[in-house]
Amino acid sequence: MTDPISSNFQVNYRYEVHFTHGVFHSDNPLLRTLLSRENLPIRTLAAVDEGLARSRPLLSDEIVRYCLPFSDRIHVVVLQAGESNKNTIEGLHELYRLIAQKGICRHSFILAVGGGALLDLVGFAAATAHRGVRLIRIPTTTLSQADSGVGVKNGMNFEGKKNFIGSFAPPFAVVNDFEMLATLPDLVKRSGYAEAVKVGLIRDRFFFDEIEAAAPELTRFEPQSLQWIIRRCAEGHANHIASGGDPFETGSSRPLDFGHWSAHKLETMSQFRLSHGEAVAIGIAIDVAYSVRIGLLDEDSAERIFAVLEKLGFSLCASELSGMDVLLGGLEDFREHLGGELTIMLLEEIGTATEVHAIDCAKMKSAIRFLRRRQTGAPRPRRSI
Amino acid sequence: MTDPISSNFQVNYRYEVHFTHGVFHSDNPLLRTLLSRENLPIRTLAAVDEGLARSRPLLSDEIVRYCLPFSDRIHVVVLQAGESNKNTIEGLHELYRLIAQKGICRHSFILAVGGGALLDLVGFAAATAHRGVRLIRIPTTTLSQADSGVGVKNGMNFEGKKNFIGSFAPPFAVVNDFEMLATLPDLVKRSGYAEAVKVGLIRDRFFFDEIEAAAPELTRFEPQSLQWIIRRCAEGHANHIASGGDPFETGSSRPLDFGHWSAHKLETMSQFRLSHGEAVAIGIAIDVAYSVRIGLLDEDSAERIFAVLEKLGFSLCASELSGMDVLLGGLEDFREHLGGELTIMLLEEIGTATEVHAIDCAKMKSAIRFLRRRQTGAPRPRRSI
Repeated sequence: MTDPISSNFQVNYRYEVHFTHGVFHSDNPLLRTLLSRENLPIRTLAAVDEGLARSRPLLSDEIVRYCLPFSDRIHVVVLQAGESNKNTIEGLHELYRLIAQKGICRHSFILAVGGGALLDLVGFAAATAHRGVRLIRIPTTTLSQADSGVGVKNGMNFEGKKNFIGSFAPPFAVVNDFEMLATLPDLVKRSGYAEAVKVGLIRDRFFFDEIEAAAPELTRFEPQSLQWIIRRCAEGHANHIASGGDPFETGSSRPLDFGHWSAHKLETMSQFRLSHGEAVAIGIAIDVAYSVRIGLLDEDSAERIFAVLEKLGFSLCASELSGMDVLLGGLEDFREHLGGELTIMLLEEIGTATEVHAIDCAKMKSAIRFLRRRQTGAPRPRRSI
Repeated sequence: MTDPISSNFQVNYRYEVHFTHGVFHSDNPLLRTLLSRENLPIRTLAAVDEGLARSRPLLSDEIVRYCLPFSDRIHVVVLQAGESNKNTIEGLHELYRLIAQKGICRHSFILAVGGGALLDLVGFAAATAHRGVRLIRIPTTTLSQADSGVGVKNGMNFEGKKNFIGSFAPPFAVVNDFEMLATLPDLVKRSGYAEAVKVGLIRDRFFFDEIEAAAPELTRFEPQSLQWIIRRCAEGHANHIASGGDPFETGSSRPLDFGHWSAHKLETMSQFRLSHGEAVAIGIAIDVAYSVRIGLLDEDSAERIFAVLEKLGFSLCASELSGMDVLLGGLEDFREHLGGELTIMLLEEIGTATEVHAIDCAKMKSAIRFLRRRQTGAPRPRRSI
């Protein structure tokens, strides 16, 4: 009677990240093929980012026209965009209500068409309605195409804590449509570059070299360069999830979160005036400067990294850096969110990261002060970094 | 450039269902061992069912006293019990807030101590805060110890739809404490029997024979019989999840949902006056009577099943059976919730279930009418079932 019952099982996950141009053009078979893989009546709910719908007023019609010929039901809803929509449950409940009303079931599809925040919100709704409806992500920004849209997470904010609520839920498929990038403002186009630099720094020195060499084209947002950097970054990101040994982050190691402890805090402190990409660029700079201060990274490599980030158009400073004690609170938020022991990735050299479990606050403050002085052009102390 | 990136990975899940007496007694090492498996400061949030706390006023103190010697933090919250607490987001947000305030992280523990509804609510909070905090379920009713507490699901109701929101999230561990059963009202003790009969009917003829033979002891709720039926039912349930090939229900087959399409609808129709166990007993009777009507099951087996359910103290009828058209709407709710094609388990013989994908509504109504007549003692038609 007293032996425990042991329950052991494996779940296999498989999804593909596709690259295309004009996913809703009637002559593009990709999405049709994905949706009609099984011989079932196809019901689809498409949730479109409001900002995107504004810049592409015909998009909703295009989606309906594309899906109608092979669908039982297709409904498009336009959702308020941006990180602020992840703060309240209204958007979430609107989605739940539509899923119920439109008869969307676990074998139906939800298409999430938009930037990272929309993908996070719609992804959470899809993961939790009926305990999981099939989600096809169609990220429409460089950042979401290169990074979060490719991964396995979703999230909502709760009472000031970014992504406090969420789950690990691999999508049914991801479709990166390069045509979506054409109408983006430069600021948004640039945002994905920060995560690309991160992937290069933590695991792929050669990729970092390539980004450095391609900086002029990237700065001009030449389509070929944009597509190349997204593809390479998405590969690195997906590869890490599938091969890193801990796709659902049960341990404490998070290489992909390099530069993110401060980035998340900066975003919140700025009330999301700073975009995720801008905050990550500063977060990378902070941890690079700190890596130098504890003798892990050489100064020349650090200067090279700062130069690449700046060439790509990022500022390495923000007014929030003056609130140093609040910012350093981000370390504990980060530890608490990821769980277990504090684990921060730092750089040994370009392409090689290492984990530390304690931060020297005086040296971290010195790193942050350095970036502020660097920005204002104040005279540098003897040590150049 | 146009080849898709393929992301394939496996996630291994493992948890144990333990059986004990007096889990919070200071000399019981089980929970202490589970909580302190890693060399980390242990933070625990325990959520206790209000009904249980009322019948055991010292329980919160016991939990604190048990955990304090080896814990960094322990906090107990008493939550409103029952299915109605799954209807609103208040209880959920109270839990999120406590998780944030008490510094509960992914490597901390949430103890859910209560019946199925509390386990569902707390399980959903644990699965979605920080994208998943370790959950130890301590089910305190026969039903939850035998059935849902052992499984991988959680859930909340949304605008009248039972378990519309939820996720698949295997617990860290389950502890079935038989001592918790002592203070339960008979009605609640009986509730677990319906799921046990179900497990016997769909996959284990021998278990059904045993239940039939043990009915007198079960009706008297003799502790040994209660413990035996819970253990056997939990084994059958856990075994199906681990070996059934589809633990997270991506397909359409759901043997464990035998009798449940109508049970869920009856619960909602009765505004949860009918407990889950009472509704499942009626749901089993409906599908057994229907199985006879379509020539799948013999009448003698059906009468044997009705007799066992009645001997165990279940009524096979409820006033809600007069709302036949509303009840039959449960078939579409069920299909929609599970997704894909309608798939209903029926019985070929005791111990052997089979799937059908269409229901003959006239015959289903005849099955329901039969149960109503049977109850009122109205003269039976020539056909005895």
